[in-house]
Amino acid sequence: MLAALDLARRIEAGELTPAAVLDTCAAAIAARESEVGAFTALDIEAARRRAQDPAVATAPLRGLPVGVKDILDTVDFPTGYGTTFHAGHRPASDAALVSMIRRAGGIVLGKTVTTELAHLRPGKTRNPHNPAHTPGGSSSGSAAAVAAGMVPIAVGSQTGGSVIRPAAYCGVAGFKPSYKLLPTVGMKCFSWHLDTAGLFAAGVVDVAFAAAAITARDLRVDGEAPAPPRLLVARTHIWNQASDAMRGAVETAARAAEAAGAKVTDVDLPSILEDAFDAHGTVQDYEAYRALAFEYDNHRDQLGPLLRGLLDAAANIDAATYDAARRITKRARQALADLMKDGDAILTPSAPSAAPHSLASTGPAIFNRLWTLMGTPCVNIPGLTDADGLPLGVQIVGRFGHDRGALAAARFVELALGSRPGA
Amino acid sequence: MLAALDLARRIEAGELTPAAVLDTCAAAIAARESEVGAFTALDIEAARRRAQDPAVATAPLRGLPVGVKDILDTVDFPTGYGTTFHAGHRPASDAALVSMIRRAGGIVLGKTVTTELAHLRPGKTRNPHNPAHTPGGSSSGSAAAVAAGMVPIAVGSQTGGSVIRPAAYCGVAGFKPSYKLLPTVGMKCFSWHLDTAGLFAAGVVDVAFAAAAITARDLRVDGEAPAPPRLLVARTHIWNQASDAMRGAVETAARAAEAAGAKVTDVDLPSILEDAFDAHGTVQDYEAYRALAFEYDNHRDQLGPLLRGLLDAAANIDAATYDAARRITKRARQALADLMKDGDAILTPSAPSAAPHSLASTGPAIFNRLWTLMGTPCVNIPGLTDADGLPLGVQIVGRFGHDRGALAAARFVELALGSRPGA
Repeated sequence: MLAALDLARRIEAGELTPAAVLDTCAAAIAARESEVGAFTALDIEAARRRAQDPAVATAPLRGLPVGVKDILDTVDFPTGYGTTFHAGHRPASDAALVSMIRRAGGIVLGKTVTTELAHLRPGKTRNPHNPAHTPGGSSSGSAAAVAAGMVPIAVGSQTGGSVIRPAAYCGVAGFKPSYKLLPTVGMKCFSWHLDTAGLFAAGVVDVAFAAAAITARDLRVDGEAPAPPRLLVARTHIWNQASDAMRGAVETAARAAEAAGAKVTDVDLPSILEDAFDAHGTVQDYEAYRALAFEYDNHRDQLGPLLRGLLDAAANIDAATYDAARRITKRARQALADLMKDGDAILTPSAPSAAPHSLASTGPAIFNRLWTLMGTPCVNIPGLTDADGLPLGVQIVGRFGHDRGALAAARFVELALGSRPGA
Repeated sequence: MLAALDLARRIEAGELTPAAVLDTCAAAIAARESEVGAFTALDIEAARRRAQDPAVATAPLRGLPVGVKDILDTVDFPTGYGTTFHAGHRPASDAALVSMIRRAGGIVLGKTVTTELAHLRPGKTRNPHNPAHTPGGSSSGSAAAVAAGMVPIAVGSQTGGSVIRPAAYCGVAGFKPSYKLLPTVGMKCFSWHLDTAGLFAAGVVDVAFAAAAITARDLRVDGEAPAPPRLLVARTHIWNQASDAMRGAVETAARAAEAAGAKVTDVDLPSILEDAFDAHGTVQDYEAYRALAFEYDNHRDQLGPLLRGLLDAAANIDAATYDAARRITKRARQALADLMKDGDAILTPSAPSAAPHSLASTGPAIFNRLWTLMGTPCVNIPGLTDADGLPLGVQIVGRFGHDRGALAAARFVELALGSRPGA
């Protein structure tokens, strides 16, 4: 993998040029893209021209190449949103986040594969660790492109579990910030109360560096080692759906953090959070029936069966049911804020298991939906593996609006696990 | 003006056809559009074909024609967002609200004039009551089209005062619902925490009918006369910027409501709401610099001087200042919710005066910004006029999420003022 922070430091020190980084990316793409299938569009030559601009090397992102999930609008790449019927679409404007990346001196190298409209129908991407396994979704291409060393930074989005789950399956750091920390303007909407833009990079310091550079916020965690956090281990009411390997990964992370000085406490989530787990689907589906109204009303037969079925059923969710789910959300957020007065972050699985042996499904988002609905920052910590060598991700959930705290807690656990200690 | 509710009832009763309503609209457009300039695009023939579909007359909106502000994406009309450089743009999808209108049996007759990117640079629209006066903005064409009898329903949006102010200036009912009651998906973003889609129609019952039909929510207020509300008269800290005529209009509305049985109490807004008034600009401008990043970075010289200046300055707002404004917002919303425990709705001006004698400006949004930031439902009540016969609008502000209550209070005041009593 390409470690964004190291690359940026070497460019800053004059030891490396953006053009040389691009050459490394191009070589990785030449070697692996035919198998991995991370991209829907690529323009290495345009990126090389941009890398010649002396201004990029001194900008916050140092001219690093970035992969952008193909549900974000770009004027210079076709934006198909993972559909056949929007293929070749050229938006009038770049998504706000894309413009922010360009402003920060990032170079958009290409568009990465998304599932259909960021839902469940898989694209062509395969897991770089084993091509018979899913890379996860919906930000399949972004996670895989980072894991395969084709880009140091990639953009994704999460409505259910579309950042944290593919990050976990592909063994990279994933960061779903607090709701609306990164703008979703110009990103194809699935659910306006849930859609959250996020980032992928090799390790926690790298994804924090990228987030800091793009937002001009104090989010980096690569200075002094973070103070030991108070960690709440939340096994959740669906713990029985986690594999033995995943349960072991959470225990390993908890014990390593404890050994490194963290205060680690087991916690039962209040029952309103179980209600919120169910409310997620109501909010998502009610809003999707409206957000994707054009696609459903005009291209229903071209949609995959899962999304078509979701929207068929969603047509029957009435406003009272939706409003009730929104009220549960509000109460659950308050209960979670109360719970987190006793801790800096929650430690919980990123996914039920390592990436399933299938390309027909991108795997379940059951360990992600609740946190997306809560709007809290989430970080996938890479570094652990199962008996087959496939990545196992554990997740840090921080307090809403305390994104740096979440990243610092994740960095602490990552260091405790011995991952990327030298960054 | 065309009263949407009356038209819908007559269509429902078989006394009128959608095609006949379209003929009425077409006649008003032929008579007045050259002077008023409400539309950027019109397709009366396509609307006539759609009106022949027997399904529309039985759908909730009964085949009524709708004007849509040209910051909402439409596949069948060019969508220029009030700019030169996006002129002729054809989006890939309809905005969610446009699809919802079509689903409800509304017929999109055309796109209406918006100021540049829904900010302050005026379009071609003139006030139907006096063409030397502004129609207000940014939803200039939508308000004017309803006022001139060219459509019974129109869609607009408000980030500062872009629904309530033009409704007041043009003498029509305007409804800015609670934040996110109507989706903004596919609506050009200026500020993601502020942008709110809204509706225009002849009177309060009409705009409530349209909102109910589009959302399938219990929002209609045309049944029994509403119960007398507890009204809080908020003159606000900028009362000295209201004209004598506007002050008189608020007093007239308060006394009429009281005479009709309402409990009317003067109220001073807590000082945190003054802070929130200032915070509005910080939130708006910080977000606009990112939401409009593509336009600013690529078309800065084609922007009008006011928006260019706003974005130039907004580049210097840092994250800490923005976060502080967001925290003020949160505290102000709580203070407002506490205040409104003693009342069903606030009565306050919709604008400082009647429409100014100018086409160079769309007038000030100072009586609107706070309520947009609060996310509360707002209704402009038409019916009063100044000494020159120009409309004066008074505003009802309801509790967040209690949109029907706001509409009912507005209907009560409208009835007390003797406007549209027979509806």
